[in-house]
Amino acid sequence: MNRLDVLKRMFNPNAIAIIGASREPGKVGFSVVKNLIEGGFKGRVYPVNPRADEIFGIKCYQGIGEIPETIDVAILCVPAAIIPRIVEDLGKKRVPIAIVISSGFAEVGKNELHHKLIDIAKRAQVRVLGPNIFGYYYTPHDLCATFCIPYTKKGGIALTCQSGGVGMGIIGYTRSHEIGVSAIVGLGNKADLDESDFLEFFAQDEFTKVIALHMEGLKDGERFLQIAKNVSKKKPIVALKVGRTTGGARAAASHTASLAGDDRLYEAAFKQSGVLRARTLEDLFDWAKVLAKLSPPKGDNVVIHTGAGGLGVILSDACYDQGLNLMDIPQDLEEQLREYIPPFGSFRNPVDITGASPPITYEETARLLMNDTRVDSIIFGYWQTVITPPMVFADALARVVDEARYRGISKPVVASLSGDSEIENAARYLEKQGIPSYPYAPEKAVAGLAALYKWTRLTSTSENGR
Amino acid sequence: MNRLDVLKRMFNPNAIAIIGASREPGKVGFSVVKNLIEGGFKGRVYPVNPRADEIFGIKCYQGIGEIPETIDVAILCVPAAIIPRIVEDLGKKRVPIAIVISSGFAEVGKNELHHKLIDIAKRAQVRVLGPNIFGYYYTPHDLCATFCIPYTKKGGIALTCQSGGVGMGIIGYTRSHEIGVSAIVGLGNKADLDESDFLEFFAQDEFTKVIALHMEGLKDGERFLQIAKNVSKKKPIVALKVGRTTGGARAAASHTASLAGDDRLYEAAFKQSGVLRARTLEDLFDWAKVLAKLSPPKGDNVVIHTGAGGLGVILSDACYDQGLNLMDIPQDLEEQLREYIPPFGSFRNPVDITGASPPITYEETARLLMNDTRVDSIIFGYWQTVITPPMVFADALARVVDEARYRGISKPVVASLSGDSEIENAARYLEKQGIPSYPYAPEKAVAGLAALYKWTRLTSTSENGR
Repeated sequence: MNRLDVLKRMFNPNAIAIIGASREPGKVGFSVVKNLIEGGFKGRVYPVNPRADEIFGIKCYQGIGEIPETIDVAILCVPAAIIPRIVEDLGKKRVPIAIVISSGFAEVGKNELHHKLIDIAKRAQVRVLGPNIFGYYYTPHDLCATFCIPYTKKGGIALTCQSGGVGMGIIGYTRSHEIGVSAIVGLGNKADLDESDFLEFFAQDEFTKVIALHMEGLKDGERFLQIAKNVSKKKPIVALKVGRTTGGARAAASHTASLAGDDRLYEAAFKQSGVLRARTLEDLFDWAKVLAKLSPPKGDNVVIHTGAGGLGVILSDACYDQGLNLMDIPQDLEEQLREYIPPFGSFRNPVDITGASPPITYEETARLLMNDTRVDSIIFGYWQTVITPPMVFADALARVVDEARYRGISKPVVASLSGDSEIENAARYLEKQGIPSYPYAPEKAVAGLAALYKWTRLTSTSENGR
Repeated sequence: MNRLDVLKRMFNPNAIAIIGASREPGKVGFSVVKNLIEGGFKGRVYPVNPRADEIFGIKCYQGIGEIPETIDVAILCVPAAIIPRIVEDLGKKRVPIAIVISSGFAEVGKNELHHKLIDIAKRAQVRVLGPNIFGYYYTPHDLCATFCIPYTKKGGIALTCQSGGVGMGIIGYTRSHEIGVSAIVGLGNKADLDESDFLEFFAQDEFTKVIALHMEGLKDGERFLQIAKNVSKKKPIVALKVGRTTGGARAAASHTASLAGDDRLYEAAFKQSGVLRARTLEDLFDWAKVLAKLSPPKGDNVVIHTGAGGLGVILSDACYDQGLNLMDIPQDLEEQLREYIPPFGSFRNPVDITGASPPITYEETARLLMNDTRVDSIIFGYWQTVITPPMVFADALARVVDEARYRGISKPVVASLSGDSEIENAARYLEKQGIPSYPYAPEKAVAGLAALYKWTRLTSTSENGR
């Protein structure tokens, strides 16, 4: 069975076995069973533990061989030393993939055990994810195959991460910021499966809109380059490649024994293969959430719409920094805007409707920009006023965007919100309505839109055969 | 009376008059009285309104002249057109400063009124803050002279901001992130007082540790340069100068009629005068909170302490990017660390105590680094584990740092926390203990520490007379 077919079974399993399932709360083998069940997985769950009759109310098996069904995925939470033997058993049972959560391999210097695992897995024809990982999530099937926490917020971002610590941070950040994901996959020591394999799966996964990668090093750069080149034409790929610097590379070597490699090579490879390179963890998410939610713009004309001149200045600076093109507002559009905006507002770009504007001004001017086919993308810079409070603004904007989408206008819209802490709720509401929104940090809204532009340019360039 | 003396009265008033106080909730003149009272201001508050007997239970006066006491500050919330006449009255009453909240001046094209205000204020010997501002806060005296919301979180950051919209964002961000401030001052159109005046006041203000400026343009660059040069030797100044780019400058011109000027001139001026330049609003705060909390490091030796190798890699990259020097761990320190860290941990820098470490390992290894005089600063990269949960880590770290401070060791410590949303509480707790902490965003912890290093280097350079 080829890798892609194995991954299809991994993400769409009918039956999962947990080797090393435990009755003891706090143990990894307990948490995995609990999370599968409580996370809402609809398939069959088979705990395996020779010293238990049932776990979490489910019948427990003495060994994988005793399970009276085809198993699609086995999750291993047993001591590292017996993992190779377990993988042999999986091979006999024709289980196509082992999710090796257990640590105690190359990361603690046990290189021999690492190679033994690889050899035995190859002979047994069992694919290996890990070892030394937290497991994986796949939200379309409510699948929480991990000892962490159940994850419920569905969305279009698929993530892989090499480090458990960073992975935990990713899970926390996405939960706290209500950023929906399709999948989060720990790669750990990458004894077998790596980023390239998951790129191939996510490329054809209907629930994934954008692929985000955290990586410390690549085993096979050539293969990654080839696969990424194809995938990035279909779906945006954002990568946070760490170990960029001398100090970071040294740390990566002692962490996952990764060869961080010459960073210029990665830089060139990402460029060639159409991978967007994030510099920080926050960039990775701030970009990914825009890429997951918005369709590519039809052209370069960006308009900033604001109720606060000061925000307009910051947003303009950020557009320049990011290479976004502020459109000159055409005379006839200006005249239409003047019907709603007081004469001391600004009709250049940024369009400044002024701070004292009532909700109707926000709504009607937003509608004018949404409906004008010359405007390709809009950045809203809202600031809180008594006359148009945050939720009133959010509601008006969501309505205008929704109307436009209903009529087939899908131009990208992002929002930056400034004001007291209530704006956080308004931003969350806008996110739910499919409008990427950023409280307090105007530069992030622009960076998100810029990532969408970068990807759009990359794909149109490659389509042109350049 | 010179400007500094006027500002001393503005920030330490015994009596405040509100011209245009209102009985009507929702009106600016109502909110200002309400915020002064509910904010906890201990001095006398005198509402002035010819059409009211009392406001908020306080006797109301027909005009400023009738108040039977010396007034230190007058807050003006009356229509722009009558402001010049009111300022004349203030002069007769010898009120040294008018806080002109009202808008309707140069920002709406009323340049004549703008100049009239300046002329009359000069003749009347009344200093003017604004017009077109939200007011000001000074937390040491629970002074909320603004129509926004009462502000309670005290701390060492003094902020000035030119834009009301950005100011609102600043107030919201600092509240939401529990970043304490000493003062927040709106500058608006800067008809009279500007950044330079406030630099002079905050330089000698015992409650202010760091000064943060949001500016669109300077009226008198030469004066700013001279004053900033002196002040920055005493206290760190961080500036977010917006309108950096062509588009931003154009927007600034139409917003506050600011001449944004050639950005290279600002860049050079900031460098010459020891002002740290932030690029984004978030930088401004992330840096300021470190500068407000921590004493300068004694030397360049930075150590990263982490429980997650992956975080160590990201932190190492960030240190390199920011020009921080990762110390080589001396042999004897390594030997001491080995007593607590398993052999598969890392004893180089980052020091990786490994993810399975119990609280005692965090605490004892942190103590070793705190007590070692060769270590000048420490970056903690925590990731959440079941064995050492976030609050247990935070508690251990706070204890170690507290002990050391008690014994006179004040080396800078910052923390980056990775994990599920519980880490946000742990970060808040650490902040309260005087340890700048950043959930999810390891790069920010490093950028904060780097700002402290930059300021330390600037001041030591100038002390060396270079």
